[in-house]
Amino acid sequence: METIAVLGTGAVGKAIGNRLISLGYSVIMGSRTADNPKSLEWAAAGDRASADTFAGAASRADIVFNCTKGEATLEALGMAGRENLKGKLLIDLSNPLDFSGGMPPSLFPQWSNTSSLGEAVQHLLPDTKVVKTLNIVNCDVMVNPSIVTGELSMFTCGNDADAKARTVALLREFGWKDILDLGDIKGARGMEMILPLWIRSWGVVGHAKFGLRLVR
Amino acid sequence: METIAVLGTGAVGKAIGNRLISLGYSVIMGSRTADNPKSLEWAAAGDRASADTFAGAASRADIVFNCTKGEATLEALGMAGRENLKGKLLIDLSNPLDFSGGMPPSLFPQWSNTSSLGEAVQHLLPDTKVVKTLNIVNCDVMVNPSIVTGELSMFTCGNDADAKARTVALLREFGWKDILDLGDIKGARGMEMILPLWIRSWGVVGHAKFGLRLVR
Repeated sequence: METIAVLGTGAVGKAIGNRLISLGYSVIMGSRTADNPKSLEWAAAGDRASADTFAGAASRADIVFNCTKGEATLEALGMAGRENLKGKLLIDLSNPLDFSGGMPPSLFPQWSNTSSLGEAVQHLLPDTKVVKTLNIVNCDVMVNPSIVTGELSMFTCGNDADAKARTVALLREFGWKDILDLGDIKGARGMEMILPLWIRSWGVVGHAKFGLRLVR
Repeated sequence: METIAVLGTGAVGKAIGNRLISLGYSVIMGSRTADNPKSLEWAAAGDRASADTFAGAASRADIVFNCTKGEATLEALGMAGRENLKGKLLIDLSNPLDFSGGMPPSLFPQWSNTSSLGEAVQHLLPDTKVVKTLNIVNCDVMVNPSIVTGELSMFTCGNDADAKARTVALLREFGWKDILDLGDIKGARGMEMILPLWIRSWGVVGHAKFGLRLVR
């Protein structure tokens, strides 16, 4: 099985890392420094789990999940390194959430509407196969959609068909069944612009275990 | 039953107007001029249907549907007149779609992300009870969601509770069952920012008879 790098030590990185470990993958959690307490603690808890820098994790992995915060994504991926990510599948879960104006966050204008963070990642890493997915639900739902009663839909987009097919296979391992391919990476605009509705819905529903279904 | 003004003579205005007529309401289709061939033709086809200017329709109606294109909405509502709309429920279906860059449209930056067209309408008409809804589906689905197999969700938002309750009752007459109140008019941001996803999904699904369900 492939070795997978998970970049980011927050709730999303941990949820993705734990799920991949449970599915039998070797997982390297990447962060800014090799001695990050969060990633070392995470790595100590599981077989086939390890910790490394962004660059070390990226260079050793076959597939990379970007689980960094949107505001830090481009810097983190720059540290991971274009050469280390060359030819690889990068599954991008980030959202361009701007918390600088307080709650609720808005989207960074430079990465929304006529652009997206997914497109910015692909532009930064032209030799990498970027696929956007999973950003539209809470991390517990990402890795186990069956915790929501009722079938959800998931979207993917990216410029490389094989990379999307590999991503869809991983999504199916997570439990996703209804997966729609929105085309090239520009589809990330619509996927990221769902966030303001998600945030309002979260307040109304009262918990984060929900998602969208595209009924058609 | 109340008299309802439908501002806008396009596909959305006709769909809303026809549905309201079928439900027994008297409907006035408003447009820039009293002798608009589109609205006169529409009015000639049905009992309780008439045509007037934006201002005439607004002044004679108890409830107003804004079905104008986003780019023309503020001008049209300005023509309808703040005094004519004072104290009334205005149900806003518009989307701030900017076609100036070609297809697919983006959203007008001044009415997205940190603002919305719904908020701009409420700001223009401070004495009017603005409720945003229905903008997230095709007009045939707006007035008859049962044409889609599987239950859809609809959102509302606005600053006045009674106005939202009257809107929900109208939505139920149209056939909507799962209706979520997203709070104040700022919820229009999320509702309008769904459009890029809707447009991409339209291309993938291959027809417009689809919608979203918030599964929770």
